[in-house]
Amino acid sequence: MLRGMIFRQLFDAESSTYTYLLADPVGRQAVLIDPVFEQHQRDLAILRELGLSLTHTLDTHQHADHITGAWLMKKAVGSKVALSKRCGASGVDLPIEHGNVIPMGHYAIEVRATPGHTDGCVSYVFADRVFTGDALLIRGAGRTDFQAGDAATLYRSIREQIFTLPKQTLVYPAHDYAGRTVSSVEEECTHNPRVGGEASEADFVGYMDNMRLPHPKKIAAALPANGRCGEPEDGIVAKVAEWGPVVATYAGILEIDPRWVAEHRDAVVLLDVRTEQELTGELGKLEGCVCIALNELRDRLEELPKDKPVAILCRSGRRSAMAMQILRKAGFDAANVAGGMLRWRALDLPAS
Amino acid sequence: MLRGMIFRQLFDAESSTYTYLLADPVGRQAVLIDPVFEQHQRDLAILRELGLSLTHTLDTHQHADHITGAWLMKKAVGSKVALSKRCGASGVDLPIEHGNVIPMGHYAIEVRATPGHTDGCVSYVFADRVFTGDALLIRGAGRTDFQAGDAATLYRSIREQIFTLPKQTLVYPAHDYAGRTVSSVEEECTHNPRVGGEASEADFVGYMDNMRLPHPKKIAAALPANGRCGEPEDGIVAKVAEWGPVVATYAGILEIDPRWVAEHRDAVVLLDVRTEQELTGELGKLEGCVCIALNELRDRLEELPKDKPVAILCRSGRRSAMAMQILRKAGFDAANVAGGMLRWRALDLPAS
Repeated sequence: MLRGMIFRQLFDAESSTYTYLLADPVGRQAVLIDPVFEQHQRDLAILRELGLSLTHTLDTHQHADHITGAWLMKKAVGSKVALSKRCGASGVDLPIEHGNVIPMGHYAIEVRATPGHTDGCVSYVFADRVFTGDALLIRGAGRTDFQAGDAATLYRSIREQIFTLPKQTLVYPAHDYAGRTVSSVEEECTHNPRVGGEASEADFVGYMDNMRLPHPKKIAAALPANGRCGEPEDGIVAKVAEWGPVVATYAGILEIDPRWVAEHRDAVVLLDVRTEQELTGELGKLEGCVCIALNELRDRLEELPKDKPVAILCRSGRRSAMAMQILRKAGFDAANVAGGMLRWRALDLPAS
Repeated sequence: MLRGMIFRQLFDAESSTYTYLLADPVGRQAVLIDPVFEQHQRDLAILRELGLSLTHTLDTHQHADHITGAWLMKKAVGSKVALSKRCGASGVDLPIEHGNVIPMGHYAIEVRATPGHTDGCVSYVFADRVFTGDALLIRGAGRTDFQAGDAATLYRSIREQIFTLPKQTLVYPAHDYAGRTVSSVEEECTHNPRVGGEASEADFVGYMDNMRLPHPKKIAAALPANGRCGEPEDGIVAKVAEWGPVVATYAGILEIDPRWVAEHRDAVVLLDVRTEQELTGELGKLEGCVCIALNELRDRLEELPKDKPVAILCRSGRRSAMAMQILRKAGFDAANVAGGMLRWRALDLPAS
């Protein structure tokens, strides 16, 4: 890998899909390969926490087993949607084809057409790694029995576009179903039971034409949605919260900016979960707070009104994150006030 | 990462456990960190296919949520079992403690004691990465409510032993439950909601003491088994197959050596799944074979006797791998003859 380059592999357990984050460590420009709709908040959080600016989402093809997060990301951060011209999808900002290069800060990602699983499949080559989508999988290959799939075409794509890369090139596929995360061109050339070693085109076609897999569970929803790059039919997406600028962190915590809370005290119930002793300490406490120490919270939930969302504070925002999880489990709409009393005081926000 | 170093991250979806393979690319010596009992065949296959010699299994601690694959690996390939002295487990070959170094070919792995999740937890440091077990998780930390766990101890372990590593150090934990595969010391110092940023020891303890998680599902079986480093009570493990030297490949195919098949023709049903046309070609066919082309196999299963295991051939061993999956699904005991007719002929094995 290029020195210092930012790289993250992310997994969606529901569809066994891998999403990849690549970023220039200096300019902080990032791309996401194959983002998943349902993982939007997680992926948004890692971009935010690493201080990255997403320039493109790159789908390897029009997926049939999950809905892409491309449109959601575009809506959230203005990233450009890249997809093969051949997919014929609407909402594509960068219709790509074989030989294109996609900029990522000071670097560039090469597009190689690798059709066969679908007609519009591409692989992305960057530095010492190739992102193969559903063309080449670890010890496998994408099915070829729908979406204009063709086993002979896939055989040639893998042999001519992927196996011709340097043998140490790392292979990162769009899926794995056995807990394998990465392979190499050399490994797949040697050990792929479908397309590696002495497998001829006829061997491969014979194998692929006899798989008879059931259709993906989500195909009826995924194909039309991905034909719009993941835009919902009504163009509407549920927000993390309607009542304020709540964001989900990569840790899965819902957080709200203390400045917003200070300006909208009437819109929320303020809950402080520090111990009684701390409330009289140096940091003091906010006026009008409900005070219930974290270790008593589970037993005293009935003291909290349910007609407003709950904004939770502690010293530094750690225990209140735990409290947020307890409250949400109990059916409350709740968010952690980011940074707790420490940040509240550092920002010089009013106590009343 | 050191140039050329072999590294693989592997996932067990059942227990959300990560296993790590590290190997010296020259001498081919390898270690496995936190192998999982049920993934033994997969892990054995990747070692074999990469041509690696496993010298040690390194458990980060005595796990409560899954059974270690350490004993199985020792039995299979003679690897040494490394575990902290403090775990007090039987069957440990290398009882380790803080400051030890474990050789891996020309390299060495450093042991750091990181107690708190359990008393015997260690982290392993190698080059630009740290394997933190259940001490530091991505945006989390291991629970501290059993196995002599202690939140204050864990806070100090993470702060003093992990957060003091260079900030670009990659953090590879033993688990993740949200599809995250890796983090860095810098990221966790900044964004870990329990132990990062301004979290004090009291904040962390307050958080951890209020988690009230249910016990792991497998704890009753895992703890005693891991007290023996994964050795079953009767010391007996089901083999891949009883009838011959069948191995599972990393692709999940059961394969048998053609030399054994040639010497034990009476012990198996030989099935050739090539097309009729191929059977009269240059490679010829073996005497006494049942010949059913792969595309007809599903409809002609009743032609195969079930009283012997089925050894399956095709040209190169690809289509027969598909046939193996069809037969096993239909309840047959079947294995793919590795390398097919091509290897059979290359090895000059007899046709009758």
